[in-house]
Amino acid sequence: MDRNFECFLGCDAEYKDASIVLFGAPYDSTTSYRPGARFGPHAIRSESFGIETYSIYQDKDLTDLKIFDAGDIELPFGDAARPLEMIEEMTKTIIDDGKMPFMFGGEHLVTLGAVRAFAKKYPDLCVIHLDAHSDMRDDYLGVKLSHACVLRRCWDILGDGRIFQFGIRSGDRSEIEFSDKHIYSEHFKIESVPIIAKQIKKSPVYLTVDLDVLDPSVFPGTGTPEAGGITYPQLMSGLKAMTGMNIVGMDIVELAPMLDPTGISTATACKIVREMCLLFGKK
Amino acid sequence: MDRNFECFLGCDAEYKDASIVLFGAPYDSTTSYRPGARFGPHAIRSESFGIETYSIYQDKDLTDLKIFDAGDIELPFGDAARPLEMIEEMTKTIIDDGKMPFMFGGEHLVTLGAVRAFAKKYPDLCVIHLDAHSDMRDDYLGVKLSHACVLRRCWDILGDGRIFQFGIRSGDRSEIEFSDKHIYSEHFKIESVPIIAKQIKKSPVYLTVDLDVLDPSVFPGTGTPEAGGITYPQLMSGLKAMTGMNIVGMDIVELAPMLDPTGISTATACKIVREMCLLFGKK
Amino acid sequence: MDRNFECFLGCDAEYKDASIVLFGAPYDSTTSYRPGARFGPHAIRSESFGIETYSIYQDKDLTDLKIFDAGDIELPFGDAARPLEMIEEMTKTIIDDGKMPFMFGGEHLVTLGAVRAFAKKYPDLCVIHLDAHSDMRDDYLGVKLSHACVLRRCWDILGDGRIFQFGIRSGDRSEIEFSDKHIYSEHFKIESVPIIAKQIKKSPVYLTVDLDVLDPSVFPGTGTPEAGGITYPQLMSGLKAMTGMNIVGMDIVELAPMLDPTGISTATACKIVREMCLLFGKK
Amino acid sequence: MDRNFECFLGCDAEYKDASIVLFGAPYDSTTSYRPGARFGPHAIRSESFGIETYSIYQDKDLTDLKIFDAGDIELPFGDAARPLEMIEEMTKTIIDDGKMPFMFGGEHLVTLGAVRAFAKKYPDLCVIHLDAHSDMRDDYLGVKLSHACVLRRCWDILGDGRIFQFGIRSGDRSEIEFSDKHIYSEHFKIESVPIIAKQIKKSPVYLTVDLDVLDPSVFPGTGTPEAGGITYPQLMSGLKAMTGMNIVGMDIVELAPMLDPTGISTATACKIVREMCLLFGKK
Amino acid sequence: MDRNFECFLGCDAEYKDASIVLFGAPYDSTTSYRPGARFGPHAIRSESFGIETYSIYQDKDLTDLKIFDAGDIELPFGDAARPLEMIEEMTKTIIDDGKMPFMFGGEHLVTLGAVRAFAKKYPDLCVIHLDAHSDMRDDYLGVKLSHACVLRRCWDILGDGRIFQFGIRSGDRSEIEFSDKHIYSEHFKIESVPIIAKQIKKSPVYLTVDLDVLDPSVFPGTGTPEAGGITYPQLMSGLKAMTGMNIVGMDIVELAPMLDPTGISTATACKIVREMCLLFGKK
Amino acid sequence: MDRNFECFLGCDAEYKDASIVLFGAPYDSTTSYRPGARFGPHAIRSESFGIETYSIYQDKDLTDLKIFDAGDIELPFGDAARPLEMIEEMTKTIIDDGKMPFMFGGEHLVTLGAVRAFAKKYPDLCVIHLDAHSDMRDDYLGVKLSHACVLRRCWDILGDGRIFQFGIRSGDRSEIEFSDKHIYSEHFKIESVPIIAKQIKKSPVYLTVDLDVLDPSVFPGTGTPEAGGITYPQLMSGLKAMTGMNIVGMDIVELAPMLDPTGISTATACKIVREMCLLFGKK
Repeated sequence: MDRNFECFLGCDAEYKDASIVLFGAPYDSTTSYRPGARFGPHAIRSESFGIETYSIYQDKDLTDLKIFDAGDIELPFGDAARPLEMIEEMTKTIIDDGKMPFMFGGEHLVTLGAVRAFAKKYPDLCVIHLDAHSDMRDDYLGVKLSHACVLRRCWDILGDGRIFQFGIRSGDRSEIEFSDKHIYSEHFKIESVPIIAKQIKKSPVYLTVDLDVLDPSVFPGTGTPEAGGITYPQLMSGLKAMTGMNIVGMDIVELAPMLDPTGISTATACKIVREMCLLFGKK
Repeated sequence: MDRNFECFLGCDAEYKDASIVLFGAPYDSTTSYRPGARFGPHAIRSESFGIETYSIYQDKDLTDLKIFDAGDIELPFGDAARPLEMIEEMTKTIIDDGKMPFMFGGEHLVTLGAVRAFAKKYPDLCVIHLDAHSDMRDDYLGVKLSHACVLRRCWDILGDGRIFQFGIRSGDRSEIEFSDKHIYSEHFKIESVPIIAKQIKKSPVYLTVDLDVLDPSVFPGTGTPEAGGITYPQLMSGLKAMTGMNIVGMDIVELAPMLDPTGISTATACKIVREMCLLFGKK
Repeated sequence: MDRNFECFLGCDAEYKDASIVLFGAPYDSTTSYRPGARFGPHAIRSESFGIETYSIYQDKDLTDLKIFDAGDIELPFGDAARPLEMIEEMTKTIIDDGKMPFMFGGEHLVTLGAVRAFAKKYPDLCVIHLDAHSDMRDDYLGVKLSHACVLRRCWDILGDGRIFQFGIRSGDRSEIEFSDKHIYSEHFKIESVPIIAKQIKKSPVYLTVDLDVLDPSVFPGTGTPEAGGITYPQLMSGLKAMTGMNIVGMDIVELAPMLDPTGISTATACKIVREMCLLFGKK
Repeated sequence: MDRNFECFLGCDAEYKDASIVLFGAPYDSTTSYRPGARFGPHAIRSESFGIETYSIYQDKDLTDLKIFDAGDIELPFGDAARPLEMIEEMTKTIIDDGKMPFMFGGEHLVTLGAVRAFAKKYPDLCVIHLDAHSDMRDDYLGVKLSHACVLRRCWDILGDGRIFQFGIRSGDRSEIEFSDKHIYSEHFKIESVPIIAKQIKKSPVYLTVDLDVLDPSVFPGTGTPEAGGITYPQLMSGLKAMTGMNIVGMDIVELAPMLDPTGISTATACKIVREMCLLFGKK
Repeated sequence: MDRNFECFLGCDAEYKDASIVLFGAPYDSTTSYRPGARFGPHAIRSESFGIETYSIYQDKDLTDLKIFDAGDIELPFGDAARPLEMIEEMTKTIIDDGKMPFMFGGEHLVTLGAVRAFAKKYPDLCVIHLDAHSDMRDDYLGVKLSHACVLRRCWDILGDGRIFQFGIRSGDRSEIEFSDKHIYSEHFKIESVPIIAKQIKKSPVYLTVDLDVLDPSVFPGTGTPEAGGITYPQLMSGLKAMTGMNIVGMDIVELAPMLDPTGISTATACKIVREMCLLFGKK
Repeated sequence: MDRNFECFLGCDAEYKDASIVLFGAPYDSTTSYRPGARFGPHAIRSESFGIETYSIYQDKDLTDLKIFDAGDIELPFGDAARPLEMIEEMTKTIIDDGKMPFMFGGEHLVTLGAVRAFAKKYPDLCVIHLDAHSDMRDDYLGVKLSHACVLRRCWDILGDGRIFQFGIRSGDRSEIEFSDKHIYSEHFKIESVPIIAKQIKKSPVYLTVDLDVLDPSVFPGTGTPEAGGITYPQLMSGLKAMTGMNIVGMDIVELAPMLDPTGISTATACKIVREMCLLFGKK
């Protein structure tokens, strides 16, 4: 008798055959406001059965690709050091095997683990960052490994001119000033993606999508909702504008299912996962 | 002493005087994902007291019309055959009495009961179908009488060129291909209603509104929310564009109040009921 | 890379080695009041990580047993005939392989599928039935295959003197009168289990636990809560009193996670699963 | 075509034939903590379909009685004076017609309207009061017509020795001291009902049940839950001990459905309504 | 040891130094549909920690201003007369001390208390009113002091030509007709603010924002949601267009946190408070 | 104008006059299952207004004592080391000033900060520990500073014979075996408190109450509910049995308000705070 195990809709390929590897990073210990992003990967996986494998938007089907869903890494809570190591390790294994990792957070800090692995492999790595929040603080209440500092920690590794932010509408004065000097940051909208796409050409790109870049009406289920976000079609346009880029890895983070009583945020996250796989995955 | 019974706001006419007859069809047994549409009719009726009988949009008032609210049909659960017969019977009685039925679902399958009654009376019946989902599968896990197949079952009766879909953004590859050949289907938007309205002129039209055609931000309280839907003003424009048509019957389906903790979906459904009565009802 | 799949806590044995086989039967189409029991098996599996594999009550550990979690059967919704066949088939396979099936419902009707399989193998089968509701109606709104009739359908197969009910506190007059004549039924409490245990000795017993036998304070997350139920310790005493019996199969049904916003019902269900495995499973 | 209107389960008798008249008093404007008891009557009526008309406890059936459900009085919000007049009027009409009123609150203040009507008809009226809270303040933040003062306002009318409280576990020092002097008050439990029943013999009794007398585990859905309450069986015992009394009118108050996400409080309220009708109603 | 008391984010100035004084008016007794706006001020204060003090939109920071958060006035419930007096008194004190009051409701009726104080000081006071509902009824079920009549009561004081409404999309026929004659009212949108701003020049203006002017998708957490509202950016544009006006006092009302399970409404209210302080406050 | 700041009901004394000092420790980063205990202190403070200052149980009133509510310590999230230092510091300050600290968690790990401070002052410190969970693991997924290890960390400081557990009903085999050797542990019940009270006589005692010691029916709002817990009256009896002891400090932990949609857990926590102050506080 076979076990009818649960994986993301239509992503039941074997690891050896897969071009994309999904995995969950259920960590949220540094969340400073409303926790629960740890339940994001599980919710995305189990609610994926509410959508279709086929996308009318792209006339493509998830079952046309080979995708392996590895399930969740079993991360400890509290101090972030060890979880970040484990995420880096997992990412390294996948990219060393020539596959594209697609991580489901978790709070945004988990991105740092993946970026560390990618930066070692690709010294010229760029990061495309979709988010409501700048995440460029140097520390948060004295903590350096905090969700509120994750892009700053990436900057520590990558340096100036490698981080490209879109949709930003929240930050403190100091981080906005820092961003103005050191990274590219489009406020409120994600309309300049095509310009950036041309600019960075074929550089390897890690794409991190903090789902709170969406307007809270569309995506209420997140720890720190910020009014005035982008719509779902705007997000899709932004992502489509990246199809010419050399995306080598990606993540979506900050879905907090406990804050999503209607389930619309989770359903939307599932649809974004499908569209991102179909946009950036290789057959 | 009179009983202060509950009916949809301002719809307390006697049956014999009424031009519109409201009734609930609280069935949802074939819902494949999140059930609860059975509670839709009750919620619409009881929450209607949060809106006004008067519409600023149309400068008309529900109390200007004669509307009878029959309450809910007491439908059994499980196998769909008997509930569909009961809905067909109810619809037949109302149209035989020269009144317009307005059914509140329940899952979308209830539409089939009404369409069967109308198709017998009007051999040239057309169906206008607003929905996020194509609902054109031939079967769902082997089940032919399923919410996911309801428009396909209508097509079995009506044949090619009689079904006009708007707002569709989800389906599997096979049903989209089938639709392309046999029915009219506008994806993502409902902008072509005026064109279709001209085309089908005075044919009798059954109008079925699956409320998930709306964006989940506007209408979260439904079993299978699909990101990227239309806005409330877009829906209203589409409905207004139908005012020249010969609408003979109508329904709204798929409100699931258990998935609507804020009540905004139910309140929106109530407002749509009011506007549809005022747009398509006769004095 | 191995897939970190989700199964009930500590139940990751291979099928061939297992003495107990867990499986979910996520069907609830005949539920007449509040649906959602279809989500029970999934919730039990994913929330099991909130409890320990070890039981202080019994000084035993789930990891001492070999248990295989088969996941959920993919059942169609609507008409109950096909789902019941699929459940019967699954049950037959497991018992033919010499293992004990432990099914997670779903609504109570799923029990019928399992009982059909067992009754074919064991002509002298008895059923122990823990429930708030009698479930002895001959039909419900004309439907014979209904959750409200499941024990009556079992009686159709087993006949008089084979069904033993405990905890019953709701029913209509006719079914209570029927029960008085044809089965054993203890109202309100489950104190007479030891007496029955002696009486039926080594007859093969199928044990079905409708979780609404518990008081709604302890177990709110169920479709039809009935005040005045038994406590968790009373349930445990009742189950312990069955340890001398020849339990050949078992189920727990009617957890409806959408009605369990605090999660206490799901957590309690998980603990009951653990205790039942440890009480009735063989090493 | 008849209207399938909603009334409390099995209570569809005509007014002229009825011995009991149910009506809702959906007022809660003086609630000082968490409002929402206004939705109590509606919830009791619509959720009554989750229980049976038959009571195993009493071997009686609601359909054996003639009960008329009048629906809700349409009360204004804000100042309590007019709503109390309207409740008094309604109560007077019913008792003048020789029927027993059974009111569903609303907040506890609604009881005052009913008691005013009864005190005019029965100068020797006693009040049996089941509650967690003493409700004997002279004013609350300067307001005399407040839910927190309702029994004090009854005392203003009835005087010493006519009010009998049970289950009280909350109050301020002054009201407890006042109660000790002027009324009978059993703290924490309702065990002395039989003693009081003997004492007041055949005096006409108005029975008011604030549902928060129950433990919050059993009845969470109320504005001001107080730990340490009585169980459902204890409440039933207390009510049974009143069967020899001359109950002339009754109410249940303080169900707040918005605070009852699982529905167990509403279901329990429905069952209490059924049991109270069967205990105190006349054929 | 100092007390770490809670106030609106960054608004911990001393009263004597402050130019803006925040205070809560937690009253909602006349709410006719879904109550709970009483909890609005508390929620705004405690959830303000989810946003930043700095606004990217205006490049200003709350900590640049001196703002005193007075906490909530302790208002009695029931009859509205006394609460309105207390609000008037509070408002008078603040404006007599040369500071700008910013009140957090509560239901919309609280605005009347503030307007009374302002009208006494400024005989030429104008009111800018953002709302989904006209609130121009003369009475509601006989009650004159009702949330549904609040602007009509303001008109009683101010007379014709002083009230300017925007965003209105609900009302009964009579109040819309009244508004057409006596006040300025823009339906559905808030686009004409710049025209009105020019027209009333430097007249003292009281600005009242009923948050249900926003679309329910953006702001679900309110008692009476009305589909078809304005977006957050549209609201911000409207408010910015008022910066040239002489705003002397302001309020936001009708946040009902119990109806906001995701918290997005509360978070949005907090952001609006920040933006309004930064737009209309003086250093 | 004075600020109407929020503190625990009736606990508005000045620090210098106070005998008890309340403070919140809103940390929950090591919670391994469902987070949210960080919101406990805030909820206890704001919901305390639903209960009375007076206790009928003890005929005492909170206003008879001098209690200072310091508000919450502003703790960073993530790594536990710094938060524990800050809690230790706060505790030290209070006890050095001759006052009794009463901490509101937060997850259970916060207790370690307080115990460190007390153990330095009182080398013979005992800990009374009420809990469903043993919390005696040496590590949890490699983490030593985890909620699941907190009593083990206390044991590291205090050694054998100083920790007295009650109500324990969950743990893994190894921690139960460890407990049997090194500490006192009563399983399932808290009946042996009087025996222990006699045994430890006048030793200084730190009392830590993990609220999940209560049955989930009574206290659903906690991260890891465990069926089969003690009732509220049993908890009160246990606490009363400690009145002769030398309690020098105390805490209550693990209320998670996001998991308490009905509010009964928070209301119960407030009542326990009141009773503990009245039982163990000095005038």
